[in-house]
Amino acid sequence: MKRHLLSAADLTRDDAELVLRTAEELRSLADRPIKKLPALRGRTVVNLFFEDSTRTRISFEAAAKRLSADVINFSAKGSSLSKGESLKDTALTLEAMGADAVVVRHGASGAPHRLAHSGWVRSSVVNAGDGTHEHPTQALLDAFTMWRHLGSLDGRRVAIVGDVLHSRVARSNALLLHTLGAEVTLVAPPTLFPVGIDTWGVETSYDLDAVLPKADVVMMLRVQRERMNASFFPTAREYSRRYGLDGKRMRTLQDHTIVMHPGPMVRGMEITADVADSDRSVIVEQVTNGVAVRMAVLYLLLSGAEGVAGADESENDA
Amino acid sequence: MKRHLLSAADLTRDDAELVLRTAEELRSLADRPIKKLPALRGRTVVNLFFEDSTRTRISFEAAAKRLSADVINFSAKGSSLSKGESLKDTALTLEAMGADAVVVRHGASGAPHRLAHSGWVRSSVVNAGDGTHEHPTQALLDAFTMWRHLGSLDGRRVAIVGDVLHSRVARSNALLLHTLGAEVTLVAPPTLFPVGIDTWGVETSYDLDAVLPKADVVMMLRVQRERMNASFFPTAREYSRRYGLDGKRMRTLQDHTIVMHPGPMVRGMEITADVADSDRSVIVEQVTNGVAVRMAVLYLLLSGAEGVAGADESENDA
Amino acid sequence: MKRHLLSAADLTRDDAELVLRTAEELRSLADRPIKKLPALRGRTVVNLFFEDSTRTRISFEAAAKRLSADVINFSAKGSSLSKGESLKDTALTLEAMGADAVVVRHGASGAPHRLAHSGWVRSSVVNAGDGTHEHPTQALLDAFTMWRHLGSLDGRRVAIVGDVLHSRVARSNALLLHTLGAEVTLVAPPTLFPVGIDTWGVETSYDLDAVLPKADVVMMLRVQRERMNASFFPTAREYSRRYGLDGKRMRTLQDHTIVMHPGPMVRGMEITADVADSDRSVIVEQVTNGVAVRMAVLYLLLSGAEGVAGADESENDA
Repeated sequence: MKRHLLSAADLTRDDAELVLRTAEELRSLADRPIKKLPALRGRTVVNLFFEDSTRTRISFEAAAKRLSADVINFSAKGSSLSKGESLKDTALTLEAMGADAVVVRHGASGAPHRLAHSGWVRSSVVNAGDGTHEHPTQALLDAFTMWRHLGSLDGRRVAIVGDVLHSRVARSNALLLHTLGAEVTLVAPPTLFPVGIDTWGVETSYDLDAVLPKADVVMMLRVQRERMNASFFPTAREYSRRYGLDGKRMRTLQDHTIVMHPGPMVRGMEITADVADSDRSVIVEQVTNGVAVRMAVLYLLLSGAEGVAGADESENDA
Repeated sequence: MKRHLLSAADLTRDDAELVLRTAEELRSLADRPIKKLPALRGRTVVNLFFEDSTRTRISFEAAAKRLSADVINFSAKGSSLSKGESLKDTALTLEAMGADAVVVRHGASGAPHRLAHSGWVRSSVVNAGDGTHEHPTQALLDAFTMWRHLGSLDGRRVAIVGDVLHSRVARSNALLLHTLGAEVTLVAPPTLFPVGIDTWGVETSYDLDAVLPKADVVMMLRVQRERMNASFFPTAREYSRRYGLDGKRMRTLQDHTIVMHPGPMVRGMEITADVADSDRSVIVEQVTNGVAVRMAVLYLLLSGAEGVAGADESENDA
Repeated sequence: MKRHLLSAADLTRDDAELVLRTAEELRSLADRPIKKLPALRGRTVVNLFFEDSTRTRISFEAAAKRLSADVINFSAKGSSLSKGESLKDTALTLEAMGADAVVVRHGASGAPHRLAHSGWVRSSVVNAGDGTHEHPTQALLDAFTMWRHLGSLDGRRVAIVGDVLHSRVARSNALLLHTLGAEVTLVAPPTLFPVGIDTWGVETSYDLDAVLPKADVVMMLRVQRERMNASFFPTAREYSRRYGLDGKRMRTLQDHTIVMHPGPMVRGMEITADVADSDRSVIVEQVTNGVAVRMAVLYLLLSGAEGVAGADESENDA
C-alpha cells in the first residue's frame, strides 16, 4: 500500500484485498475478552475535521483506540485556521507535534491530496471525506460488507441509488468496486448525475424498478433535503415514489440480495423503516465493519506490516 | 443489578448497597500511587450528551478512564441527529461501533428508557439526567456521601430544599433514599412542587425554618433563575430570604448535620458563601464521590462481577 | 521547582535549566519505537480552556498522553460557568474529580494566579496563556529551541518584533531570557509598546533594520489584524514594510541567526513565505519542542522528581 489513502483509485486489487483480509482478522477481536491490540501503542492519530461528522470521527477514534494509539481530535471550527493560518501550516504543526496519521475531513474536494502531495508532511494522510469527491474508507467498509455476505465480488451487480451528483460515497464505491471486479449500476434521476459520468466505467439508469431484480447489492444513498429543490422534484414524496426503497420494491429482489446505506438515514425518504429494519438490511453491520476496516487501514499504513502479526500479541495472551 | 441504570427506582436495597460498598472500595484507589484499575480495559464507554453538562460528562469520563476503559465523547450538537437521524439509529450506530455502555444525557424525560427498552441495543444504558425526570447516579453519589458521614440511612431525616418541580435530582434522591430507609422532607414554595407529589412517599413542607432543626442532612437544590418569574417571587432576594441557606439558618442545625448541593451553585441565591465553605458543607466531597460512584456503576454493569475482584489486580501490584 | 507554573518569573535559572535538560531527554523519545513513558500513569491532566486555542491545547494533550497521563478536555464554553458558577467552584470541582494538574487558558490576565494562590486547590496549575499577561511554556519552548541551536544563552542577542503591547509571548520571553542571561531587544512601533516597558529590563527600538544585523535570534510576533487600526498604520502593507521580515531583511542577518515565530503565522503580514520556509526558520521545530517542554513541565510538577528517572522505565524496555 501507498503511504496515504486519498482515493479509492489509489488501491490496487491486491491492496484492497489486503485491507479486507486484515479487517476480517481485526473484526474477530470483538469476540475476545479484551478488544484491544497493542499494535499502535505510542502512535498518535489526529482527527482533523473541518466539517462536523460525528459518526465518521467516532469510527476512526474507536478504531485507533482499539489499536492502542493515542487519538487527538481537532475540530477546525474556532481554531487558528479561522485566525488566518493556512492548511499547510496546520499540517506542519500537527506533524511537528508528532502525528503519525492525519485523518482529514474537509468540505473542499481535493484538500487531503494537497495535504499529502505538497511535500509538507511525512505522516500518513487518510481521506475521511472531501467535498463531493471521495470517501475511500466508506467504500472499503462497503466492499468488506459485500464480501462477507457474497464472497468474491467478481461479476456481482451492485446498484447505487440516489443523489449520485453530490455523493462522495457513490464515487469511491464505483472506483473500488470496479477494481474488485463488480458491475456497478448508478440509478438516479437525470438531474442528479454528474457531468462526465460516462468516464466512470459504470452503467447508469433512471429506472430503479428495472435494475432491482438483477442486483446482488442495493446501496441507497442519503438524500440531502436541502438539495431537493423544485427543479428536481415537486416534492420529497415524489422523489420517494420514484427512487425510494419500500417494502413493495424490496420484494422484487433476489433472495440473497442485501440492502445497504452509508447512514445517516432519513427513514421514509430514501428508505422506509420496514426495509431498513428487515433481514436483508446490513446497515448496522456496515457500522461495525467500518471500525474494522479503519483499524485495518491505520494498521497497514502505520505499522508498515503486510499482515496482522500484531494480532498474536493481543493483550488477551498476557 | 439490572443491565441498565435508568431510574433510582430500578435499584433494590441490595443493589444500592452493593453500589455503595463498591464505590467505597474504588474510592480508596485515590490513595494509591497509581489511581487506575485494569478492570474495563478494552471496553468502550460512550458519553452521548444531547445537552451540555460538562461537569457530569467529565465525572463519567474520569470514572471510565480510571477503570482503563476507552471513552468516546459524542456531543449531539452538530451531529447527524441534526441531519434527521433518529435516536434509534444513533443508538444502533453507537452499539455497532462497539459501545459497551452508553451514558446518555437528554433534555427529554424518558429518552434513556426508550434507548434501553426498545430492544435496539444490548449495551448498558446509564441515565445521566433526562429532562426533569431522573438523575440516578446523582442520587447514588448523594446517598454515598450521607452514608460515609452518617452510617446507615435508616430513619435518617433528609431535607431537600428548593425548586423540586424542575429537579431530577430531587426525584431520584427521594426514590433512592426511600429505598435506603431514610425519611425525606421536600421543602419548597407551593408553586414549586410537582403535581402528584403525594405519591412520592415523602413529607412536604413550605417552612424551611421548621424543618432544619430536625434534619440530619440538608440538600439545597440549584435555583434556575430563568424559572424564577414574578408569579413565584417578586425578586431573587425574596426567594433567598424564604428558602436560602445562610449562616443564621445553619446555626439552627444539629451538630452532626451535613449540608449538600449537587452543583453548580449560585452562591448568594440558594446558599451563601459562608455556608458553602463551612465545615458542614460536603459539597466538594460530593464531587469526589461522584467519580467513585460512577466507577462502581460502570464496573458493576460492565464487568458482570458482584464485587471488586478487579481491585486486587491493581496496576500497583504489577 | 514550585508547585505551579504561572509566570516565567517564577523560574530561577536552575529551574529553567532543569526544564531544558529534561525536555532534551524527553525529546529523544521521538526516536524510539514506542514514544511513550509510563511516568504519569494514573495521573489526570485537565485542559481548562476558557478561550479557544486548539494549538496549545493539542500540544499539552499530546505531552500528557506521551507520559501516559489521562487527559480531560474542558472547554468552558457552554459549561456551568455560563450558568453562574464561579472560577473557584470550577477549580474545586476539577480537583475533587481527581485532577492532578490543571492547564488553564483564560482571557483575563491573572486568572491562573487566582486559581493557584487562593488556596482553593492542591493540584498544580499551569498557565497556558492568560490575557495579555503571560504564556510561560511558550517562553520555555522558545528558550529550548534557542539553546539547542546556540548553546548557552548568556550574552546572546534576541530581537522580539511586533505587537509587544498585546503579546503575552513577548512578556514571558523577556522575563525568561533575562533569567537565562540573554540580551533582549523589543522592536515595535511606538504605539505598540506597553506602559512600563522601562521596567522590563530590556532594550527597545523602533528600528528593525538597525537591530537585525546584531541579533542571534529574531522572533516575530503574530500581528492581530483586528488591532491594526488606522491610528497605528494606514494599512497592513505599511506595517509589513516597516516591521515585517522579508527576504531582503533576512539577508542582513548573521549566518548563525535563527528566525522564530510562535504561530499561527499570518504569512505575508509579519513574515513572508520565503522567510518562513527558509533554512533559518525554526518555526516547525518550535512546535515539536513545545511538546517536549510541556512533557518536561508536567513531569517535573507531577512526579516530584528532579530528573527523568522514569525515562529508564520506558515501555521500550518491556
